Amino acid sequence: MEHIKNYINENKDRFINELIELLRIPSISADPAYKKNILDCADAVAKAIKDAGADNIQICETAGYPIVYGDKIIDPNLPTVLVYGHYDVQPADPLELWESGPFEPVIKNTEIHPEGAIFARGACDDKGQFYMHVKAFELMMNTNTLPCNLKFMIEGEEEVGSENLGVFVKENKEKLKCDAILISDTGIISNNTPSITTGLRGLSYMEVEITAPNRDLHSGLYGGAVANPINILCEMIAKMKDEKNHITIPGFYDNVLELSVEEKEDISRAPFSLNAYKKALDLPDIHGEKGYTTMERTGIRPTLDVNGIWGGYTGEGAKTVIASKAYAKISMRLVPNQSDEEITEKFTKYFEHVAPKSVTVKVSPHHGGEPYVSPTDIPAYIAASKAMETTYGKRPVPVKSGGSIPIVALFEKELGVKSILLGFGLDSDAIHSPNEHYGIFNYLKGIETIPHFFANYAKSN
Amino acid sequence: MEHIKNYINENKDRFINELIELLRIPSISADPAYKKNILDCADAVAKAIKDAGADNIQICETAGYPIVYGDKIIDPNLPTVLVYGHYDVQPADPLELWESGPFEPVIKNTEIHPEGAIFARGACDDKGQFYMHVKAFELMMNTNTLPCNLKFMIEGEEEVGSENLGVFVKENKEKLKCDAILISDTGIISNNTPSITTGLRGLSYMEVEITAPNRDLHSGLYGGAVANPINILCEMIAKMKDEKNHITIPGFYDNVLELSVEEKEDISRAPFSLNAYKKALDLPDIHGEKGYTTMERTGIRPTLDVNGIWGGYTGEGAKTVIASKAYAKISMRLVPNQSDEEITEKFTKYFEHVAPKSVTVKVSPHHGGEPYVSPTDIPAYIAASKAMETTYGKRPVPVKSGGSIPIVALFEKELGVKSILLGFGLDSDAIHSPNEHYGIFNYLKGIETIPHFFANYAKSN
Repeated sequence: MEHIKNYINENKDRFINELIELLRIPSISADPAYKKNILDCADAVAKAIKDAGADNIQICETAGYPIVYGDKIIDPNLPTVLVYGHYDVQPADPLELWESGPFEPVIKNTEIHPEGAIFARGACDDKGQFYMHVKAFELMMNTNTLPCNLKFMIEGEEEVGSENLGVFVKENKEKLKCDAILISDTGIISNNTPSITTGLRGLSYMEVEITAPNRDLHSGLYGGAVANPINILCEMIAKMKDEKNHITIPGFYDNVLELSVEEKEDISRAPFSLNAYKKALDLPDIHGEKGYTTMERTGIRPTLDVNGIWGGYTGEGAKTVIASKAYAKISMRLVPNQSDEEITEKFTKYFEHVAPKSVTVKVSPHHGGEPYVSPTDIPAYIAASKAMETTYGKRPVPVKSGGSIPIVALFEKELGVKSILLGFGLDSDAIHSPNEHYGIFNYLKGIETIPHFFANYAKSN
Repeated sequence: MEHIKNYINENKDRFINELIELLRIPSISADPAYKKNILDCADAVAKAIKDAGADNIQICETAGYPIVYGDKIIDPNLPTVLVYGHYDVQPADPLELWESGPFEPVIKNTEIHPEGAIFARGACDDKGQFYMHVKAFELMMNTNTLPCNLKFMIEGEEEVGSENLGVFVKENKEKLKCDAILISDTGIISNNTPSITTGLRGLSYMEVEITAPNRDLHSGLYGGAVANPINILCEMIAKMKDEKNHITIPGFYDNVLELSVEEKEDISRAPFSLNAYKKALDLPDIHGEKGYTTMERTGIRPTLDVNGIWGGYTGEGAKTVIASKAYAKISMRLVPNQSDEEITEKFTKYFEHVAPKSVTVKVSPHHGGEPYVSPTDIPAYIAASKAMETTYGKRPVPVKSGGSIPIVALFEKELGVKSILLGFGLDSDAIHSPNEHYGIFNYLKGIETIPHFFANYAKSN
């Protein structure tokens, strides 16, 4: 398989420059102001897949942003791999914390990435990661080594819940028919310790609004006699957890799979240093649900986090106001076998229940997603594990991740196919944060590993 | 005293237009972006006082915004009244809730103000109210009826705590020497029920900052394992009150004057309809400290209100982030005999105490002010009461107000003189809120009442 290394060596500068061009497009799906950029980005993705050698390129319209499709069917009798990724990115704020423009990619060396990393919103999540597949496909096409059929489905709404992808998958089951789904939108433990994600948490995401007086009031004239919606919102949020950081929503843990001792031991074997973790984040102390380790808290336990809160006067100086309204964005990470629908309902009911009579409450669900578990004994997982073992010289560790890719549970339900989460990012890549980046080592290692996966997978069928 | 009514009738259109011009200046002291406007406003005030007939006009520099001084000493042997007011205004946000521009005054009729009200930021608080004194002074000058000496001191930092006025008063005791202080920066019960404020709450105002991780994190990868500063801030704020809405800060109530049965009865005699109150604010229910009536809660009990809160993602859509920091502005209204310094210290200590070890806490005090009580048996109060009785046909009710004018306690301490709080605003004037306004009836009634005060006061000395 020397052709893989050779092709990458000859083309790596171009691979990096092409990714940098893609990262210049601010394809923020959460903010309607970027609509044109999203559409431009879909065009750029379609062109990249076409240039790499795919047929049947389509920019598929949806009720939201389009899905880019393309395929290469070399023989209908051979197995088919569907590659999924997303070309949309998270909002870039707080902008003032970026050391370079989020959409002006720069390459810088860091302690973890001595060979350099590309700094830009979407560098790792997910433009850098899905683009590895485009370049690995180009490599296989140009070296005549594509061993089976391949389909690309790259969407533009992953960061806002993939709602229209669900409809698209349901309506295009024949087009998307495949034997394995390959996704690079997760990470590895470190560049010395490869891993494959075998579990993902689900997500319920709400926006809440508390209203008390019908207008902002002077806190001197009214303070003490009317409900202050900010105080009330704080009190309601505080009631969502008890002193052990257990979530207090009735029935919240009803369906949570408790781990076996064996599974807990598996988790504890993954290399992890609590001191390094605290130091990397400047944490005075860790914080979480009593009775569980940090790896368990992020891997297999559900959570409730306020992702944003606002109300009243937030400018400079002092304003003595009682706001009319207060708002928060609250999300819960779910684990097997919780369902988004179940938790959304339980949250809403309890949140309304803890509100005093002096306020009105509005709960609006945003997107959600179900938790997911991938087995380690199926051909596609074994092919991915062997590919990493070849390129890293070490067998990858199967790990459960705290993140959510809502669509993988839907793929299983609608297409009857498991997804392999072959990601190459690092926890320190700061996805969803200022100064997101993706190591050039990781990017090229992904492009190298993917053709091995295809070779292994085609052989096993 | 027919000359008063005649003069007002002949000049009222000009009185209104002059005030409208003053209201066009966005003199927001809390936001440094408006510095030039504040200075322009000081110039406009100095010119208005000069044009009305005052001598010794000075725009006195301070470490912050200037204080406008002017006087008319007709005879050093006669008593002297010091008129205090402020030309700065509150910030105007949320701008989207204003029906007309906050600095583009318009006159509109309302149910409560059938003769029209001027809508603009500062219309009532305090430009409209201190300008009544400028026009009443003009009236007395032009009709040769000023019966004693008068000094004006109009400051530009009342809405941010009057810090530099304190220094100015200490350093200018001789210049400010007087026998009574007259302030119109409060309200009356209704246009049918005049009242004079005899008590004011004090104020402690803090900004708090909670920090957990050193950067924003992905809530999937880290959620459940690190402290979320927004959740923690909410929990800490919730701990500031118990289920009876008592404030839980240790020692908070130590110095609070409990009312006698007689005083409670006094308060309950003021005309007040709970139903009308709830209806005017669209409140589903009232909310406050158990064991006290609404009038007691705003008049004689201390409070703790969050005036603003912010952190994390507050834009459109959903972002799955754990913020690095969360912030709130928290203020407490104080009653006799609490002191700002005492309460600031107790708050800070307790707020730090309720923080978990997993976060760092920063508490920064903004301005504060002491509570105040004015007696009803001194010549100046009696003069004010008789003046209102003349112009309203009813004896005014002495009331305790929830608001704070931090400077009145300082005046008493430094100058040894009590202040008479002869305000003409209404609760419904929406001061500190969008669509602030001031009734033309109230404005003209103030201009009419003030010369009666001077006549009564000069007679009693």
